[in-house]
Amino acid sequence: MAPAFITFLTDFGLQDDFVGTCHGVIKRIAPEVQIVDLTHGIPPRAVLQGALVLANTLPYAPSGVHLAVVDPGVGSGRRSLALEDAAGELYVGPDNGLLVPAAERNGGIARAHELSSPEYALPSVSRTFHGRDLFAPAAAHLALGVRLEQLGPPVDPEALARLDLPEPDIGASRIRATILYVDAFGNVQLNLAREHLESAGVVPGRRLELELGGERYYAVAARTFSDARPGDIILYEDAYRNVSIAINRGDAAAMLAAVPGREVRIRLDVP
Amino acid sequence: MAPAFITFLTDFGLQDDFVGTCHGVIKRIAPEVQIVDLTHGIPPRAVLQGALVLANTLPYAPSGVHLAVVDPGVGSGRRSLALEDAAGELYVGPDNGLLVPAAERNGGIARAHELSSPEYALPSVSRTFHGRDLFAPAAAHLALGVRLEQLGPPVDPEALARLDLPEPDIGASRIRATILYVDAFGNVQLNLAREHLESAGVVPGRRLELELGGERYYAVAARTFSDARPGDIILYEDAYRNVSIAINRGDAAAMLAAVPGREVRIRLDVP
Amino acid sequence: MAPAFITFLTDFGLQDDFVGTCHGVIKRIAPEVQIVDLTHGIPPRAVLQGALVLANTLPYAPSGVHLAVVDPGVGSGRRSLALEDAAGELYVGPDNGLLVPAAERNGGIARAHELSSPEYALPSVSRTFHGRDLFAPAAAHLALGVRLEQLGPPVDPEALARLDLPEPDIGASRIRATILYVDAFGNVQLNLAREHLESAGVVPGRRLELELGGERYYAVAARTFSDARPGDIILYEDAYRNVSIAINRGDAAAMLAAVPGREVRIRLDVP
Repeated sequence: MAPAFITFLTDFGLQDDFVGTCHGVIKRIAPEVQIVDLTHGIPPRAVLQGALVLANTLPYAPSGVHLAVVDPGVGSGRRSLALEDAAGELYVGPDNGLLVPAAERNGGIARAHELSSPEYALPSVSRTFHGRDLFAPAAAHLALGVRLEQLGPPVDPEALARLDLPEPDIGASRIRATILYVDAFGNVQLNLAREHLESAGVVPGRRLELELGGERYYAVAARTFSDARPGDIILYEDAYRNVSIAINRGDAAAMLAAVPGREVRIRLDVP
Repeated sequence: MAPAFITFLTDFGLQDDFVGTCHGVIKRIAPEVQIVDLTHGIPPRAVLQGALVLANTLPYAPSGVHLAVVDPGVGSGRRSLALEDAAGELYVGPDNGLLVPAAERNGGIARAHELSSPEYALPSVSRTFHGRDLFAPAAAHLALGVRLEQLGPPVDPEALARLDLPEPDIGASRIRATILYVDAFGNVQLNLAREHLESAGVVPGRRLELELGGERYYAVAARTFSDARPGDIILYEDAYRNVSIAINRGDAAAMLAAVPGREVRIRLDVP
Repeated sequence: MAPAFITFLTDFGLQDDFVGTCHGVIKRIAPEVQIVDLTHGIPPRAVLQGALVLANTLPYAPSGVHLAVVDPGVGSGRRSLALEDAAGELYVGPDNGLLVPAAERNGGIARAHELSSPEYALPSVSRTFHGRDLFAPAAAHLALGVRLEQLGPPVDPEALARLDLPEPDIGASRIRATILYVDAFGNVQLNLAREHLESAGVVPGRRLELELGGERYYAVAARTFSDARPGDIILYEDAYRNVSIAINRGDAAAMLAAVPGREVRIRLDVP
């Protein structure tokens, strides 16, 4: 039989034992399952960023159960979920929108069930650590072959919480975009695809002006870092097919004081 | 045969190769053993914090060998140990108290042996990295079935180093507690159990005053974050059954300048 | 059959999904392969530090494929490589010198091939994330038994990029060394071996003077931390057989403002 996989994404960080404790819980239930840690570096409580990173990375992950926990509403009565998408991938996590973009990119949510059967949770469920007590055990049992409907009653997929994804505003001479994500190299991901730039006539080599936090910066559209000189600000299609801002051999986020959620205006009619 | 597990906890951090190198040493000796990293984020040289986190997390970990290294006295002549607790769990680490609270929570130390047999260490043992040269190899050999007594001579469990755990002082109108741990979300764990609060008559909803570093703060006893308004300071029983201070959707440690070892006074007679 | 191993070293950090995504890519191709993460904490774009850490750690790692990615020139046309050393270990990474010191410590590069066969890469290769699209798939296929020559045409090992390793200058009364690496405990590794100190007559207990960034510090040659008093600056042979500067129970790098690449002068004729 093929090995079963659980992918795992959280905002727990790696300073504390939270991730390791969840690994322990999974391995006590399903010793042979393989866990692939996608990342535990989602900023604390950043559900939107967690949802985007999960959707971006799952095409590269092995098929199986996808456990994701970014859960500022733990203990508040928000539902706990297990989902199946149209391609048969399984998801476990809170009902706060975190799982939805990944499942929708994979053909949509086929079925949703609320986690309510105590036999697939730890004997005592705390109010603040459902990752350990509820979600990790459910994921481990699913990896062992427990069926979605054994975990609890069905939920209408239409009734699930969904996130507002910011939309860009594409004009003839100006684009308004929003920063979605900043990585550890300082690259700044926008809510833009290459198609948005192309529809506005922006091709590699085109000079642009960025406005961010009241400051203006010259930039250039490029295919990759090495098309620009060290220190140049570039706008390029990153490896996840989002348009990002970067500085060749530098840290664009630090220079631009870029943080997720902030608006970036791109002026296209630069002489 | 069931897979063998080694859990692994250190203060090595993940910036350097120290954890990865120990994984390598284990896998060269015992390629099939599974390693569960509990955490490598114990603050450098914080033996007490390492001991508490180990004791808190082992109930969630798979049975096996528990390798723990927080070892400021490496090279000084402190003993190197392998222990077995009353439940048959095995432990490997330095004789500085690190392993004792976990073993005692599991029924006490049944047997202790000093690591002295060169055949279960690397050929050359450095003076500063016993994790790699002594502890990881011993854990790997135990996971393969080597017996405790093959590693070296027995040590009287009573003769092992032990840590001073700070005790709270519970009065009629005031509790003096000590900060044990601060997690990455800024939650502040105290050396108090819910029973301590209940014995002092504190129930959810009760208003309290905290005094910390000369500053005073209002707080409220709560069952969980979401019982309080965003920004409120709460006192609650955390997922490891310790009383902790938190701020709903905020960072209590940053606001209170909380660091492990510092005293917190809780005034109970708040009008 | 013995399990196949891939070791993995990068400058990706663990905040983002880059490491987890590469794990996913490997597991989709080679579900049974074991991945040993050596470290992902190499400072961004620090090829020399990555090369030194890889060379230091491989003697402790299981035999197999060694995947390493510190790649500031991604997208610039630098070659992508798979190597075999004289001992049969395999390496995958960029042609920027990163892999060479490890392979040379293991008897030298026996064979080198450029990665060019699209069947051993992902279907779409981005310009900025060759770790995911090119190197991780190549390593996974090698671990499954694909041969080096299937990945692409041979390259003359003499034609590969190599790093300039700084050499120390050993005088009768003074040594000029360079800082190679600073670890998370603040220990400062120099480009010196114990033999360099011995050739200059330095034995444990000898007092020395360090000059660094215009400041002078007394230090003492020691065998290990615990030979010195807390707070003393020591010069000792670290666990990887490099001479390092440390402070017993302190952070030498912080006190000395030590950063990789900076020169340290060691005065030997201290009264």
